[in-house]
Amino acid sequence: MYIPEHFRETDPAEIAAIMEGAPLAVVVYQGPDGLAAHHLPLMAGPDGRLMGHIALANDMHRELADGAEVLVILRGVDGYISPNSYPSKRDHHRHVPTWNYQAVHITANVAFVHDTPSKHRAVALLTRLHERQVNPDAPWKMADAPPDYVADMLGKIVALTLTPTRVLAKSKLSQNRDAPDAQGAVDDLAQRDQGALAAKMQAKLQARPSGG
Amino acid sequence: MYIPEHFRETDPAEIAAIMEGAPLAVVVYQGPDGLAAHHLPLMAGPDGRLMGHIALANDMHRELADGAEVLVILRGVDGYISPNSYPSKRDHHRHVPTWNYQAVHITANVAFVHDTPSKHRAVALLTRLHERQVNPDAPWKMADAPPDYVADMLGKIVALTLTPTRVLAKSKLSQNRDAPDAQGAVDDLAQRDQGALAAKMQAKLQARPSGG
Repeated sequence: MYIPEHFRETDPAEIAAIMEGAPLAVVVYQGPDGLAAHHLPLMAGPDGRLMGHIALANDMHRELADGAEVLVILRGVDGYISPNSYPSKRDHHRHVPTWNYQAVHITANVAFVHDTPSKHRAVALLTRLHERQVNPDAPWKMADAPPDYVADMLGKIVALTLTPTRVLAKSKLSQNRDAPDAQGAVDDLAQRDQGALAAKMQAKLQARPSGG
Repeated sequence: MYIPEHFRETDPAEIAAIMEGAPLAVVVYQGPDGLAAHHLPLMAGPDGRLMGHIALANDMHRELADGAEVLVILRGVDGYISPNSYPSKRDHHRHVPTWNYQAVHITANVAFVHDTPSKHRAVALLTRLHERQVNPDAPWKMADAPPDYVADMLGKIVALTLTPTRVLAKSKLSQNRDAPDAQGAVDDLAQRDQGALAAKMQAKLQARPSGG
């Protein structure tokens, strides 16, 4: 990922926030038929490893040996930025459009996990994470389903862990624009139903040494 | 990408819609230091090729020879689906969570374009596409900027075209659920500020032979 220094994201809390906001990761690797990519929900464990699961029918676990290298891509909010949003555009017109976004790229070594207790744990942890968000008052739990059904379902998946070897993160959020221009972009996005991106840009603006 | 048959997307109009809804593509390739990925706005031209541009400072155009293979990933809406959304869950509890999404993967041969008229055209077409959406009444145009500034900016980018050799598309939108359960998932998403995903799922539901 091309990262100019002013867009390099080095704040561990912000990197974690990008990852939490983009749970459906893209996992890429060099497969037998060329580049392969799969979309799967991942979550970071307390040890820094990522965990998730794939269908048994997904060839990924047959195409990769344990320890093989994959690239995990987690992308947060994104949106087009028009030069019209910058107040200074009216003065000198020296602006071009761009695209703002946040992304985390993690190079990692994959390991597949076939034992039932580990698979049960991976599904339970992922479920708990997401049920808390969508059904905080009455979350679905694996124990809601009959044991024979759960055993059948676990038999149809493979869990995986991803051990990071390198993390690159980028927050391209108008840090290279004067504060009034960055604020103009924030305001326009907020009016265009792009509130999540606007909030990320506003936070970067507030964090400037000048106070924005 | 792992694609069970019931999730394979073969409708050219829907594939085009996924691509239009996900203009910030991820372009992946095998680089000298391992797997590399960049995020860049792409658009499909009338000839089926994709076009875009990168910064001159982005090593991608130095790391790849013309004709090299890349994987372009365009992902649409996505969201967690809770078993609690399915009415039949209350009858038999034989459901597990899943994640819905749409994605298009395009294997393509890249070519970099360094001449100024082609770069100007790439920026103009991308700008027109996105300005129509955000500033339909008063779109920013390249001609708004002074010629010396435009020439300077074009000198700092490289345009690229991507010629597809293979397209894979997936619409994972609850087609494998009974209609009442799929409708329950749609209704829950619509209430959770996930209207875009709900609309895609509703369209698939309406398109069922039974009429939903």
